[in-house]
Amino acid sequence: MLKKILIANRGEIAVRIVRACAEMGIRSAAIYTEPDRFALHVKRADEAYNIGADPLEGYLNPRKLVALAVETGCDGLHPGYGFLSENAELADVCAERGITFIGPSAEVIRRMGDKTEARRAMTAAGVPVTPGTDGNLADVEEAVSFAKTIGYPVMLKATSGGGGRGIRRCDSEADLRRQYDRVVSEATKAFGRADVFMEKCIVNPRHIEAQILADSHGNVIHLFERDCSIQRRNQKLIEIAPSPQLTPEQRAYIGDMSVRAAEAVGYENAGTVEFLLADNQIYFMEMNTRVQVEHTITEQITGVDVVREQIRIASGLPLAYRQQDISYRGYALQFRINAEDPKNDFLPSFGKISRYYAPGGPGVRVDTAIYTGYTIPPYFDSMCLKLIVWGLTWEEVLNRGSRALNDMRLQGVKTTATYYQQILKHPDFRAGNFDTSFVESHPELTQYSDKTRPEDIALAVAAAIAAHAGL
Amino acid sequence: MLKKILIANRGEIAVRIVRACAEMGIRSAAIYTEPDRFALHVKRADEAYNIGADPLEGYLNPRKLVALAVETGCDGLHPGYGFLSENAELADVCAERGITFIGPSAEVIRRMGDKTEARRAMTAAGVPVTPGTDGNLADVEEAVSFAKTIGYPVMLKATSGGGGRGIRRCDSEADLRRQYDRVVSEATKAFGRADVFMEKCIVNPRHIEAQILADSHGNVIHLFERDCSIQRRNQKLIEIAPSPQLTPEQRAYIGDMSVRAAEAVGYENAGTVEFLLADNQIYFMEMNTRVQVEHTITEQITGVDVVREQIRIASGLPLAYRQQDISYRGYALQFRINAEDPKNDFLPSFGKISRYYAPGGPGVRVDTAIYTGYTIPPYFDSMCLKLIVWGLTWEEVLNRGSRALNDMRLQGVKTTATYYQQILKHPDFRAGNFDTSFVESHPELTQYSDKTRPEDIALAVAAAIAAHAGL
Repeated sequence: MLKKILIANRGEIAVRIVRACAEMGIRSAAIYTEPDRFALHVKRADEAYNIGADPLEGYLNPRKLVALAVETGCDGLHPGYGFLSENAELADVCAERGITFIGPSAEVIRRMGDKTEARRAMTAAGVPVTPGTDGNLADVEEAVSFAKTIGYPVMLKATSGGGGRGIRRCDSEADLRRQYDRVVSEATKAFGRADVFMEKCIVNPRHIEAQILADSHGNVIHLFERDCSIQRRNQKLIEIAPSPQLTPEQRAYIGDMSVRAAEAVGYENAGTVEFLLADNQIYFMEMNTRVQVEHTITEQITGVDVVREQIRIASGLPLAYRQQDISYRGYALQFRINAEDPKNDFLPSFGKISRYYAPGGPGVRVDTAIYTGYTIPPYFDSMCLKLIVWGLTWEEVLNRGSRALNDMRLQGVKTTATYYQQILKHPDFRAGNFDTSFVESHPELTQYSDKTRPEDIALAVAAAIAAHAGL
Repeated sequence: MLKKILIANRGEIAVRIVRACAEMGIRSAAIYTEPDRFALHVKRADEAYNIGADPLEGYLNPRKLVALAVETGCDGLHPGYGFLSENAELADVCAERGITFIGPSAEVIRRMGDKTEARRAMTAAGVPVTPGTDGNLADVEEAVSFAKTIGYPVMLKATSGGGGRGIRRCDSEADLRRQYDRVVSEATKAFGRADVFMEKCIVNPRHIEAQILADSHGNVIHLFERDCSIQRRNQKLIEIAPSPQLTPEQRAYIGDMSVRAAEAVGYENAGTVEFLLADNQIYFMEMNTRVQVEHTITEQITGVDVVREQIRIASGLPLAYRQQDISYRGYALQFRINAEDPKNDFLPSFGKISRYYAPGGPGVRVDTAIYTGYTIPPYFDSMCLKLIVWGLTWEEVLNRGSRALNDMRLQGVKTTATYYQQILKHPDFRAGNFDTSFVESHPELTQYSDKTRPEDIALAVAAAIAAHAGL
């Protein structure tokens, strides 16, 4: 088993990994750049290292991070999500320096990161992919001609893209001609590679993804699926496990296909196979070669600790479970509480948390790195808390979600919490009937009135008195 | 379904009931005496009523509480645990005034509250009871003569006792003669009734209890058992579900016996049947006719919301589950974090919470009514937080418990948290091998060193500087 892990990340996922380490008797080493000096992951880890004044640079330098791991006596490195988590170079440098990278091999990261390569591998394995080009497009003329064969709308995608970036929908030939150069230039800028390819645009699909675990002994299992259809501009807002929108046959099929996908590329560690579901057709979209923000809801319904399994797999141990050991119970929802103002086009709302009190009681889990007095720095993403609720039935989890959102106190920044209450009330959502267009097609849900609690008024009065008294 | 519930309690259980109401769309009305003016249950309920300046009196007056329920338009009353929860008069007055009491009938409360009556009912139903007197003892001579037939040690018990009070162990005839009058006088003082009876003393048993649910349609189910052997002076400290000390046969037998016990007395609502386990014999001890502090761990392993079921049952609905729908998964532990100093004979440590930060992450649940700045009043019990952890295996739940205790920040009062860490490390506890003598037979576990965290030192330094500067 690994003895000491460098956590090459920050925020709630770094805290999550610290917790897994603590439960496994593994020492944890955190890193931080100057704006993160007072971050919770720094306080909670066994050790913490300052990696520079620049807010971001330190988190993005594979060579320096691995050198730090070596210097500080770590034998493992966990990349979390985001940052360098899908950077093959980090996995390479780890291998070079004898540090165990907690994730798949550099080769698999590269292969699944190349979207056309991934499509080819899936097709060869019998996993259905969206109709699209076999490889990269040579030029706009090839794009136009291919679009004719599959019909509009089509998607232009950066071959090295991911996380919802480098993607454009084109509704006509004129549109395609207009956008082609833009996507190429975006791809070059964002991913350092001009390659783009084309897929048929699946209109308003459900986003369904399966969690898989694969060890170094050839065992691959899935932990059922998550429904991440509630998203805005390709960013997930509320995730659900299992999907309330699948038949048992679809569930079994998606499970099988995700295991097949992982086996086809010799996958190792935890990963997510993302699918689109439309008109009863299921299409492979991409594979994320890392732990995901929403792994929590899979943990809630299956009882399996995904981060611990990642560490066990990386340590060379066989999976602790066979497929037949895995079952799910009830439903889990995750609300990504973002420091954003839904009424103002989700503008980020960074600043100091003047008050935070965690929701609690039955079926409530919180993963966060915020605390009262913490200032959310403007350099990173705006997600400040993951509120996870579990219930034995769909109705129970909806009501519990609403209760827990109401239970939480988070003041000093605007958040998406009250907006999520509106989604929870919507009859289509409650009926388990929604696709990726739900958020965009319901702009009215951002027009809620700010329900002010009596205690908030009391606080405001107290603040006014204090200001008046010159305190 | 009930529309508005008066919560005739305070603290964390009142918050727990507010949450259940919120999830069910039921309005909640809290009550508070003067010292509870700033209590969390007051802040969280939909309405809150001041019931007087005396800290306790208002919580203990059945007629006034029911009158308040009527005045404020409530149709139900939840008694929580402690206070009037096993007071038959409260159930009577509720019935008189047309308020639904969320618990069993006054008749059943009386019957199970009379320990000799309960013993007779169980014996008639074929539920094994500890060898003991058929009814109450006439005098000390009858006690001495009966003790000869069952052998020492024996237990003298107040017939109306409960919650660990009015109970004395006698090791010899001389001891019995010395203690007899004391128990009688204690019983008279504490319970208003001089009756005592005798049972054989089961030496160092396991304390095992089963959660049952019974509706008004004749359906009774159990939700498996809890092991509450870790206790000090009959007060539970750490509870476990399911018990790691039972064979599958014992588990099934205890489940069956608990359902039989409930059926025998026409029980309705949630209840707990307590058993002693010693030398592979299982004996009925008593039935608690209310929700228990440790209902949480049953919720964690079965997924059933016990408080919601209480409210559904009281509303006249049939149980939402049949016995075959109930299964359990993994293990749950509950740590009762008490404001007490384990190193100083568990002396209560009331005062102001200078800092509280909830533990979080996978498998962690918190039920509490404390917050940073809250002052724990000296008038009530010392339990200030219930930390509940869940894990798929026994080893996982132990490690998670240790991690979560460490994760929590609770400053300003002494607590039992660090003491529980010592119990978690003990090889007998880890091996799942312990009985009710564990705490008393391991006084060395209270002699831990106060592990001071770097941040605690920083805080102390800051406080010293502030004091020096006259701030």
